[in-house]
Amino acid sequence: MTKQSGARLIALDWGTSSCRAFLLGNDGIVLSERRGNSGVMDVSTAADLDGLAYEEAFEEVFEALCGDWLTDLPALPVIACGMVGSNRGWVQTPYRLLPADLTGDGIALTAVPTRRGATVHIISGLMDDSKLPDIIRGEETQVLGAIVGEQASGSADLEHERVVLLPGTHSKWVRIKGSTVTSFTTCMTGELFSLLTTKSTLAQPSARLEEADWDAFVLGLDVAGAPPGNGGILTTAFSARTLVMTGRLRPNQVEDYLSGLLIGSEIADIKASWLADITVQILLCGEPDLNQRYRMALERFGLSVTHETTTSAVIGMWRTAVSASLLSDAGSPASPTFV
Amino acid sequence: MTKQSGARLIALDWGTSSCRAFLLGNDGIVLSERRGNSGVMDVSTAADLDGLAYEEAFEEVFEALCGDWLTDLPALPVIACGMVGSNRGWVQTPYRLLPADLTGDGIALTAVPTRRGATVHIISGLMDDSKLPDIIRGEETQVLGAIVGEQASGSADLEHERVVLLPGTHSKWVRIKGSTVTSFTTCMTGELFSLLTTKSTLAQPSARLEEADWDAFVLGLDVAGAPPGNGGILTTAFSARTLVMTGRLRPNQVEDYLSGLLIGSEIADIKASWLADITVQILLCGEPDLNQRYRMALERFGLSVTHETTTSAVIGMWRTAVSASLLSDAGSPASPTFV
Repeated sequence: MTKQSGARLIALDWGTSSCRAFLLGNDGIVLSERRGNSGVMDVSTAADLDGLAYEEAFEEVFEALCGDWLTDLPALPVIACGMVGSNRGWVQTPYRLLPADLTGDGIALTAVPTRRGATVHIISGLMDDSKLPDIIRGEETQVLGAIVGEQASGSADLEHERVVLLPGTHSKWVRIKGSTVTSFTTCMTGELFSLLTTKSTLAQPSARLEEADWDAFVLGLDVAGAPPGNGGILTTAFSARTLVMTGRLRPNQVEDYLSGLLIGSEIADIKASWLADITVQILLCGEPDLNQRYRMALERFGLSVTHETTTSAVIGMWRTAVSASLLSDAGSPASPTFV
Repeated sequence: MTKQSGARLIALDWGTSSCRAFLLGNDGIVLSERRGNSGVMDVSTAADLDGLAYEEAFEEVFEALCGDWLTDLPALPVIACGMVGSNRGWVQTPYRLLPADLTGDGIALTAVPTRRGATVHIISGLMDDSKLPDIIRGEETQVLGAIVGEQASGSADLEHERVVLLPGTHSKWVRIKGSTVTSFTTCMTGELFSLLTTKSTLAQPSARLEEADWDAFVLGLDVAGAPPGNGGILTTAFSARTLVMTGRLRPNQVEDYLSGLLIGSEIADIKASWLADITVQILLCGEPDLNQRYRMALERFGLSVTHETTTSAVIGMWRTAVSASLLSDAGSPASPTFV
């Protein structure tokens, strides 16, 4: 009971490969955190095998993870984001179309009742249907967390469009104005890196260096951005083999070279197609290692990072719960409000 | 003996995953053909496991495949092309640097003696070291075969630079003037197609259609070439999922869509970086299915194919043997000569 005094919200960051449950107090302070391996793919695959309905399977995991919190405080509101709202999730929630204000009246939550009488509110993902269609699910909440942090740091320029960049298996580049998402695009950079370094003819049997080889990384960036114009990863990837053959790269540098080549190609492609205004402010929101790589790469391509943060889903869920008046006393949190 | 009357040359097309042996008569006519599964990777991997020297292992396969031909005609010359000359091959042959005339005095053959007294002449691959280094091994011989065919058809414009395009796992774009290679570049298009359609999150469990879905293929081409400029495969690949989610593509169309997206991206990248002159004549040399796809794609991107042929390694090896005076009577073959 001691940990739960002052608890205001249960927040679930439930993605493809993991589930993290947070007990939050005032201002979204984390009182307790529990990590499970029951990602959405694990739960849905097991349910398929057992012939169990997804609703039952996800509620079971939820009960095991958060049941005692709700036994003690049955009125505690629950919010969730991520792939838990997909067709392989607890329930499939609709996508919101753009433009989508992440803090205003348009916030879309899908209420899922549980047998114990609690309600889980799943945050909708977003769909950009203005061009080649694109989707995010979970990242919209990280974007909100990132701009809450940006505003708290005083670096936010709410008058102009900014870009929130979430690097990862599927990198997401998200354009926002104020707290409204206006466009986004997905790059499969991390997944391609994994395929090329483990499943392709470029994969090296030798172990990667323990520390990043920044020379190889920067060489990859420069090849990706070299004149007479970016040839694209299809035309440059093979150099990961030929540079080794000609003695200009050691086998244990290939992974960092490919990391630079792929991240550089991503940025070059984005600049050429989606990011006309290269003076735009960029908020970087990812794991520390990826943030470091992307910051170096962005700066090398003439773009500037104005704010950097690690995974920000918790503060995004807290802020969404405040906006949606889920908390029993919505007036008390000191979260900033947006213009 | 009957089949071998008139035999002039044994030609080995020995690549990574297969070995094909040809008994050739006058003018390079195929008198007999034998296919083995003993590709270079198979032979070298087995040799590694057995602790056998590569020389012995390759000679053993060669003996099993061609020994009876040489028993009957011990003086028959032998020529070989492909990965058999790589560091995993029979012997590692050096790369020729560019510019490299495929028919002139510069032809580089590495003579490998066998215990029975025959000599196998392995054709060197080429290295383009004028830019990001690039290599071909075996394709130089296909290029020669393609331009021999081009000249025989009367479509050759020997005064101007042309491009020989060899689509495949690793597509090769080869610039030639007359019979001299001046530059080339490798695109990992086929390998990326295989990775994305079988190992990535875009892979579909449902079977591909038996016949190609040209609508999906052309949609992929158009997305790859769409204004405001090609975003590149990193930014467009995810649409293979979102177009299905939004009902604009059926799951069994995804492979052909990705085929179009990748081939289109390859051509867009090549046009943007390597192929400044888009009026250049293109010779297409690949398997019939790939030729059909690349012809459609090239024409959609405003490039024109002036000559098309399927795998042409045999005629390239014949022509190389003639140039290198390997044949006992080099004057008799009616192969064309180059200006």
